[in-house]
Amino acid sequence: MRPSEIGEFGLIERIRLASARASGRVPLGIGDDAAVVTQRPGRQILFACDAMVEAVHFDPRYVPAESLGYKALAVNLSDIAAMGGEPLCALSAVGLTDRWSVEDVEALYRGMARCGDRYGCPVAGGDTVRSPAAAFVSVSVLGECAAGSEIRRSGARPGDLLCVTGELGGAAVGFEALSRGADPGRFPVSTARFLEPEPRLSEARRLRGALRPTAMIDISDGLGSEIRHLCGRSGTGCILFEDRVPVSAEAALWAGLSGRDALEFALASGEEYELLFTAGPRSLEAGPPEGVTVIGEMRPAAEKCTRVSATGVRRPLAASGWEHYAGGSKTHG
Amino acid sequence: MRPSEIGEFGLIERIRLASARASGRVPLGIGDDAAVVTQRPGRQILFACDAMVEAVHFDPRYVPAESLGYKALAVNLSDIAAMGGEPLCALSAVGLTDRWSVEDVEALYRGMARCGDRYGCPVAGGDTVRSPAAAFVSVSVLGECAAGSEIRRSGARPGDLLCVTGELGGAAVGFEALSRGADPGRFPVSTARFLEPEPRLSEARRLRGALRPTAMIDISDGLGSEIRHLCGRSGTGCILFEDRVPVSAEAALWAGLSGRDALEFALASGEEYELLFTAGPRSLEAGPPEGVTVIGEMRPAAEKCTRVSATGVRRPLAASGWEHYAGGSKTHG
Repeated sequence: MRPSEIGEFGLIERIRLASARASGRVPLGIGDDAAVVTQRPGRQILFACDAMVEAVHFDPRYVPAESLGYKALAVNLSDIAAMGGEPLCALSAVGLTDRWSVEDVEALYRGMARCGDRYGCPVAGGDTVRSPAAAFVSVSVLGECAAGSEIRRSGARPGDLLCVTGELGGAAVGFEALSRGADPGRFPVSTARFLEPEPRLSEARRLRGALRPTAMIDISDGLGSEIRHLCGRSGTGCILFEDRVPVSAEAALWAGLSGRDALEFALASGEEYELLFTAGPRSLEAGPPEGVTVIGEMRPAAEKCTRVSATGVRRPLAASGWEHYAGGSKTHG
Repeated sequence: MRPSEIGEFGLIERIRLASARASGRVPLGIGDDAAVVTQRPGRQILFACDAMVEAVHFDPRYVPAESLGYKALAVNLSDIAAMGGEPLCALSAVGLTDRWSVEDVEALYRGMARCGDRYGCPVAGGDTVRSPAAAFVSVSVLGECAAGSEIRRSGARPGDLLCVTGELGGAAVGFEALSRGADPGRFPVSTARFLEPEPRLSEARRLRGALRPTAMIDISDGLGSEIRHLCGRSGTGCILFEDRVPVSAEAALWAGLSGRDALEFALASGEEYELLFTAGPRSLEAGPPEGVTVIGEMRPAAEKCTRVSATGVRRPLAASGWEHYAGGSKTHG
C-alpha cells in the first residue's frame, strides 16, 4: 500500500500503533510539540544522535526495514552504554522515498520499538518526512547516569590496561556476506550482528561495578581507529598485543576463505558495537571478568599507538577502519 | 574547497570551530560518545526533533547554508517554546551531498551556532554523514520546564479564548518571493521570517506568567491546520472570527498583487512559528497583552471547527496548510 492511499493522518496512526509504548519516565510522547521526560534526583542527562543513510550506511536490497529500525536505535543505545549510562527514551527523524510502502514504514517503526522494548528505551515520537532520493533514519536518544559519573573517552592514564568486550570481526563478515550474496545461514552470528547489533548496556553496567573503567568508547569505526580515538582524547599512547585481539570464529573462517589475515580483518571491522575501555591494573588483578579481554596497555603519549606481534615485532597502529565517508565526521554527541 | 581535501579530521575541526560554545549546563559536548547535560532540581526535560530535507523543505538555490543552519535549530526551539519551556542544548545530524564545499559546511554550522547563541541553546555536537542525492539537517533539542508545568496541546476547554502571537502570512510571502525570483528587498520582513524564523521563546515566557495558557502549539503547518490540531487533541470544537486574524502588511500586499484573498493566504501560510494558544476568558478580561490577538473561542466538540465572517456567515474551517509531503507525518516530539 502507498502512503498516499491512507494520507498523512492514516500514516501517523500506523506509526503510532507500531511505536506506542508506555513508560513511567515519559508521561507525554507522540502527539505534542515535544516529549516530556521526568528527572530523577542526583542524575544527569546523556544526549546522543546518529544517522543512517541509504546507499551510505545501509542498502535496502539486503537490509530489511525492520532491521534498519532496530539498528538505528541500537547504535544510539551503544553511545549511551559507552558513557556508562542507562537509556531513557528516543526520538526519530525518518526521511522516506517514494519507494517505501506503508508496510515498510510499519516494519521500520516496529523494529525500532522492538529494540526499545528490549533495552527499556521507548521511542517517544519524531518527525517523518519525504526524502527525494535516499531514505535516512536519524535517531536521537536520552540516557542518564549519576551526576558526574559519565565515563569519558579522555580518562585513560599510562599504566591502565586496554580491554574489549566480546569478539570482533563479525559485523564485517555480515556486511560482506550479505552484500555479496553469500548464504547468510553459514554466518548466522555475524549476519545478526550486522543487521541488528546489540548495544552492550548490561555489560557496561557490570563493568562499572566490577572494574571502574577510566575511559570507554564503543567500536563503530573499527578497533584500530577507536584505540587511536581513545589515546588521542586521553593524551596517551598505547601498546596493542596483536595475539590478544579476540577474533570471532566466523571472522577467522571468512577471512581465511577470502585469503585475508584474520587479525587485520578484525582490526578494520566497524559497526561492532562492542566496548573498548581502560581500567587500572589493580582492578584487573584477579583477571578480567567473563566476556572481557585485556588487549593492551596505555603508555605515555611519546610512545604513540604501537602494535606488537607475538614475536615482538613493533609497528605503528594504523586507523584502518570502516569509513562510510571520506569527508564525513562524527563530532559528537 | 572540497571536504576530501582536508579529510575527516580537518572537517571535524572546522565544524568544531564554527560550533563550539561553552555552557555551564553542558559540561561535555563535542568529542565524546554523548553530550552530558546537568539537571536542575524540580525541573523536567522536554525533547523534540525536526528534520529539513533538500527539495522538500529547502532549496539551496535561494536558501543560503547559513540560514538553513539557523532555521534548522530555530524550528526546534519553536517546539520548546510551544511547550512553555526553556532551551538547554541541541544535537544535529547533517547529511551532506558531494555538492557541499567546506565553506558551505562551515556556514551551516555557523548559522546553527548563531541561532543557539541568540536563544541560549548550544549545539553540543552531532553526526555529519554523506547523503547521496539530497542534503538534510535533522536537529534534536532538549529543553526544560518546572516539573508538571508543560503546556500541552490537549488542555483547551470550551469557553477558553483562542489567541495567536504576531502577524501571519509572512513566511508564505518569503517563500513565494524567493522561489519566484521576486525582489526580496520589497518584502524584507517576510523574507527574513522565511529564511531565519524567530522562535517565540520570550513571548512564551511572558504568556506563561500573564495568561496561563491552557493549551499551546506552534504554527508550522498553517493556522487553519494548527487550530484543527489543537481542537482534535483537546476534544473540542471552536469558532474562528475571520476578521480578527492578524494578517501582516506584506502578506496583504503580496496576496493583493497576485489576486488572492489575504485571509485565505494567511490561514494557509506554514512555517510561521508564531504561537497559537488558548486561555481562560478571565485572564484576558483586561484585554490581550501587546503582540497577542484573540481570534476565536473554544466550543464543545459537537460544534466542530467553524469559521465566521464579519457578516456572520458560518462555514467549516478546513485544514488548508503547508503540506511538505502528502504522505508525511509529524508524530511527536
